[in-house]
Amino acid sequence: MDGIAYLVGVDGGGTKTLVRLASLHGKTLGQASGPGSALRNGAAHAWRVIGRTIEASFAAAGLKRPADQALAVGIGIAGENVAQWSADFRTMAPAFGALDIVNDGVATLLGAHGGAPGAIVAVGTGTIGLALDIDGSRRVVDGWGFPSGDDGSGGWMGLRALHHAQLALDGRSPRGPLADAVLALCRAELPAHPGQPARDERATLLDWLSQADQAAFARAARPVVAQAANDEAARAILQAAAAEISLMIATLDPAQRLPLALCGGLAAALQAYLDPRQQARIVAPQADAVDGALLLAQRALQAKETPA
Amino acid sequence: MDGIAYLVGVDGGGTKTLVRLASLHGKTLGQASGPGSALRNGAAHAWRVIGRTIEASFAAAGLKRPADQALAVGIGIAGENVAQWSADFRTMAPAFGALDIVNDGVATLLGAHGGAPGAIVAVGTGTIGLALDIDGSRRVVDGWGFPSGDDGSGGWMGLRALHHAQLALDGRSPRGPLADAVLALCRAELPAHPGQPARDERATLLDWLSQADQAAFARAARPVVAQAANDEAARAILQAAAAEISLMIATLDPAQRLPLALCGGLAAALQAYLDPRQQARIVAPQADAVDGALLLAQRALQAKETPA
Repeated sequence: MDGIAYLVGVDGGGTKTLVRLASLHGKTLGQASGPGSALRNGAAHAWRVIGRTIEASFAAAGLKRPADQALAVGIGIAGENVAQWSADFRTMAPAFGALDIVNDGVATLLGAHGGAPGAIVAVGTGTIGLALDIDGSRRVVDGWGFPSGDDGSGGWMGLRALHHAQLALDGRSPRGPLADAVLALCRAELPAHPGQPARDERATLLDWLSQADQAAFARAARPVVAQAANDEAARAILQAAAAEISLMIATLDPAQRLPLALCGGLAAALQAYLDPRQQARIVAPQADAVDGALLLAQRALQAKETPA
Repeated sequence: MDGIAYLVGVDGGGTKTLVRLASLHGKTLGQASGPGSALRNGAAHAWRVIGRTIEASFAAAGLKRPADQALAVGIGIAGENVAQWSADFRTMAPAFGALDIVNDGVATLLGAHGGAPGAIVAVGTGTIGLALDIDGSRRVVDGWGFPSGDDGSGGWMGLRALHHAQLALDGRSPRGPLADAVLALCRAELPAHPGQPARDERATLLDWLSQADQAAFARAARPVVAQAANDEAARAILQAAAAEISLMIATLDPAQRLPLALCGGLAAALQAYLDPRQQARIVAPQADAVDGALLLAQRALQAKETPA
């Protein structure tokens, strides 16, 4: 046969790339993580990060990395829903033994409900909601990307945190712990410029903003979560984010008949702010997006072995 | 002497660059406009656009463009408030006979009140509010840039228009004329991809969004203004923008003692949505930002002729 020896699952998000290596029987052998590989930053960059992280997963398993042809690879990656980015990414793919590529939200859905009907809202750097209904129909909400979409996400919250700090510095709103925490984050992330006078607060924000991308704004969601107990503005941002997630849940599953999983790095922080009836419906995901990607790899391998 | 023969005023905005050429006595000789030159897109690009537009202003005046040394140049440019961008821009400046560079908002303030105390809010692709008070104190609100700031601006409105279209396409909100108009704009701006099937609505938005910058979002403010009479969501965006402008006005001039000018391409559309008492306070600007930049050029020339 074609000598495929390993399954590789890849979850390529905006701030982190996770790779899990498994045997053909699905036994986990090793795992590694790398920086973000969202397609927004280019297909070449994504493949570079993914290649290195696959390498690292073999190292973590204490195995020699075989040739690409020996790997059945499933990839869930942020930005796959943009046609041009997806086409670029597919064109540059290595010659894996088997390969399937989906949006990272789809991999999260596959993992959360083991491929069975269900709904997810994944809230990390970005946000997407997906449902696979009992009748086989699929629904999607958001996943529109930064800055106009991904409601309730880390990028979305960070954008609001920066906006709040801007209002506070201008004297357009009172200044509290959130504004201070945002300024501290910006100051810590800016490179020093030796020999020049220290930046004042306005220059600190402007310098940080001039280079800020979605991942940078998503980092500014941390002070929002951290200050929610102390600062009304931080609490209001979390409440508004939860309201967006609630609307997504209601739109994805109006009949309220699907198991619903809240996934991603901000799920835990947001869950407490949801409507109690929605909270009661939430189930823990069966597995994560990397396991969803491994399921995809397994299916790609099967499709190859039993051509239609 | 140093042979300066002309004054040149430059207003470098996010979507348009305007150059006015004047004699040393302030008589306008010619004018030309070019594409945007905001520093966000790089100092080299800004200088290229400015250089060509100065060239064109001499052509419009029917004059031969003299050497750089013969020009006293005043420039108000978007993004000058970001220290690094400003430093890059100044480093690459041609050897003009005299030169002064300020933020485009400062040039607007200079033009609007002839250098005298007053306040402005400039609402175009971006938004900034500035006041020069009777006691000589200066205040600034916003000008934080896209996407976290520039409240009420074209970019700000367009971001909300796209967000509305996204909700409508997902079924998270009702769909009306604004969503249709936004989709039509995106479809018209996307290049055709011959030989491939036509993009569906979701792909149309995602493709447009994947390449959208501040100027692109500012173009999406047009359907907001155009649909305000027909669509509640469009009207709500304009009302929210006006509320942001109102807050800026109140913060810039809490004692309500300064003449206040509303400037920029969206001033007229927003003025009608302001509080009637604020509307009553608004004065027409004495002159525009290019005239403010010419005033700057004149001052730079005087400073050169009468060293301290």
